[in-house]
Amino acid sequence: MEKLLMGPGPSNVDPRVLKAMSQPLVGHLDPDFLKIMDSTMECLRQIFKTKNRLTMPVSGTGSAGMEAACVNFIEPGDKVIVGVNGVFGARAADLMGRIGAEVTEIKEKWGSPIEIEKIVKAFSAAKGKIKALLLVHAETSTGVHQPLDEAGWIAREEGALFIVDTVTSLGGVDVRIDDWLIDVSYSGTQKCLSCPPGLSPFTANERAMDVLRKRKTKVPSWYFDFSMIEKYWGSERVYHHTAPISMIFGLHEGLKIILEEGLEKRFARHMENHVYLRDELEKMGIRFVVEPAYRLPNLNSVYVPAGIDEKKVRMRMLSEYNIEIGAGLGEFAGKVWRIGLMGHTSRKENVDTLINTLKKVMG
Amino acid sequence: MEKLLMGPGPSNVDPRVLKAMSQPLVGHLDPDFLKIMDSTMECLRQIFKTKNRLTMPVSGTGSAGMEAACVNFIEPGDKVIVGVNGVFGARAADLMGRIGAEVTEIKEKWGSPIEIEKIVKAFSAAKGKIKALLLVHAETSTGVHQPLDEAGWIAREEGALFIVDTVTSLGGVDVRIDDWLIDVSYSGTQKCLSCPPGLSPFTANERAMDVLRKRKTKVPSWYFDFSMIEKYWGSERVYHHTAPISMIFGLHEGLKIILEEGLEKRFARHMENHVYLRDELEKMGIRFVVEPAYRLPNLNSVYVPAGIDEKKVRMRMLSEYNIEIGAGLGEFAGKVWRIGLMGHTSRKENVDTLINTLKKVMG
Repeated sequence: MEKLLMGPGPSNVDPRVLKAMSQPLVGHLDPDFLKIMDSTMECLRQIFKTKNRLTMPVSGTGSAGMEAACVNFIEPGDKVIVGVNGVFGARAADLMGRIGAEVTEIKEKWGSPIEIEKIVKAFSAAKGKIKALLLVHAETSTGVHQPLDEAGWIAREEGALFIVDTVTSLGGVDVRIDDWLIDVSYSGTQKCLSCPPGLSPFTANERAMDVLRKRKTKVPSWYFDFSMIEKYWGSERVYHHTAPISMIFGLHEGLKIILEEGLEKRFARHMENHVYLRDELEKMGIRFVVEPAYRLPNLNSVYVPAGIDEKKVRMRMLSEYNIEIGAGLGEFAGKVWRIGLMGHTSRKENVDTLINTLKKVMG
Repeated sequence: MEKLLMGPGPSNVDPRVLKAMSQPLVGHLDPDFLKIMDSTMECLRQIFKTKNRLTMPVSGTGSAGMEAACVNFIEPGDKVIVGVNGVFGARAADLMGRIGAEVTEIKEKWGSPIEIEKIVKAFSAAKGKIKALLLVHAETSTGVHQPLDEAGWIAREEGALFIVDTVTSLGGVDVRIDDWLIDVSYSGTQKCLSCPPGLSPFTANERAMDVLRKRKTKVPSWYFDFSMIEKYWGSERVYHHTAPISMIFGLHEGLKIILEEGLEKRFARHMENHVYLRDELEKMGIRFVVEPAYRLPNLNSVYVPAGIDEKKVRMRMLSEYNIEIGAGLGEFAGKVWRIGLMGHTSRKENVDTLINTLKKVMG
């Protein structure tokens, strides 16, 4: 029985992607595979809206992309600013600390975006040069859609790299790497790209690559070291690690599906189904966590109604009706459901199925 | 057209594995998936011949496993000994250096194993305690089968961890984690396990986990931090990163295939087809790089005969006959072919096809 995946990811995968993954394997240096790598990079550039040469999938999940974004461009002792308004901002701050960065956290209430004024203040309060600003575009733990159009200008002005987590946004809402002056970004395949988890689409511009080239210390990770990885994905084709070939077959097909639909049409579809879901939930008296202006259409965080055993409802939805919705994380545990309408899953009939089942199960 | 993958990996994948990977996705915390995780761990324990609780696939390729093995158990300033007789020993030494270890390399000629006397000497020459000894069981760049039955005793005596790279050995030749006193080992899925690349089967015993628990510093990697990962694969089921679900479906099926065949029968099959290949190659006057006592049956390194353009032969084999064999790496580049007989690929009819085609192409 196929499950309807309406949690915070993974989302349902288009059957074309599963078929592509089940193709017989080829070698990671086979000319036929190198063509698929090139085409994957080109598709990713269109979806990230960037001209960046280094645009390719990191061989790990979204968190691997986060790690690659930090270890390549940050050195011990570097000062960084990280927006923390949920689990993934906190994860980035933790990771930055592990690699020896001096981290200034801009903390914000869960469910609210990081205010631009606070970013300006953090830069002006800093003693010494800030190496990077990291923000999460779509905070998967809260459903907040972080505005990004100004922050890149501030970072650029201050000579800092702008690193953005687009794990849950890419392919579901607009991501404009070049227009928004984003220097480095990592995403995930299992959210709005509707592929299985296991790869992290990644992009970095020449400004960032220049920082990498001028490092004083070796990148502390071998697996994520872009100074070597770029030689495998670039024209040199120097073996680094064996690429996850089948996953890349799947991602390539998934990206083609997105470009066939068209990005703007895809974003509109995500918004339309979100509005439909929102209206139906509000009719049931269910309230959203996030203010309308900052709501992600693809990840709907809602308060569990009073008197409802959230876990029991969630478990019954899954075991009796094969519908997965997400629990709250961290301080939202037990209080919030996270309903995903991502990629292939974002369809009106799925909203109907969800609402009807939720009504039945909540009684 | 399906390709015959007779290089140093990936090997051909059993159609059952591809079918398993193309199952519809489920959530990474879905009880149905948790059962598959448990079964995958149990299968891996049998194949690694270990009782280690922490036995699971790391979410990345074999090199990710190497990184996980180093970052979790080694801290800056720790002294380590690494056997370097090929690309993968050199990679491990590089990685150990990146994370701040003081590395003593035991260098050996490419194509020869690390001698046990040199290991004893390296320990006795060391000033201060050695934290770990790392050896590569099957050096994929040379075809050397490293003897392991004594080294673990030496390391244990010296109070050091014994870390072993089993990327190319697991499932093709005997790997006895518990008997050989191996504390930590990482493998890869795309060699003798005959699954697509993308996961690194990993095992660590309580002695190693104790070292992790007593670290003075945080693990410098978030993605590979076993103190968190063990809580997702263990009974707590705490979310860490989203597991590569489809890849694990595939690995699980691949491991079941191995256990259905039986490990000892599988090793005998690998040896039988190696002997057949060896005899046929020697009839053609082609010489092996490695002495008979240290040859891997699954990875056959042979010298390219004088007067033969190795690249031209390799490229024609691939483009005209869909057969992939491997080039030499590093100091073997241009001089050596690496012929893999791994897992699903290790079959008499494949040897026949290879030999007949090689004769045709070499003219």
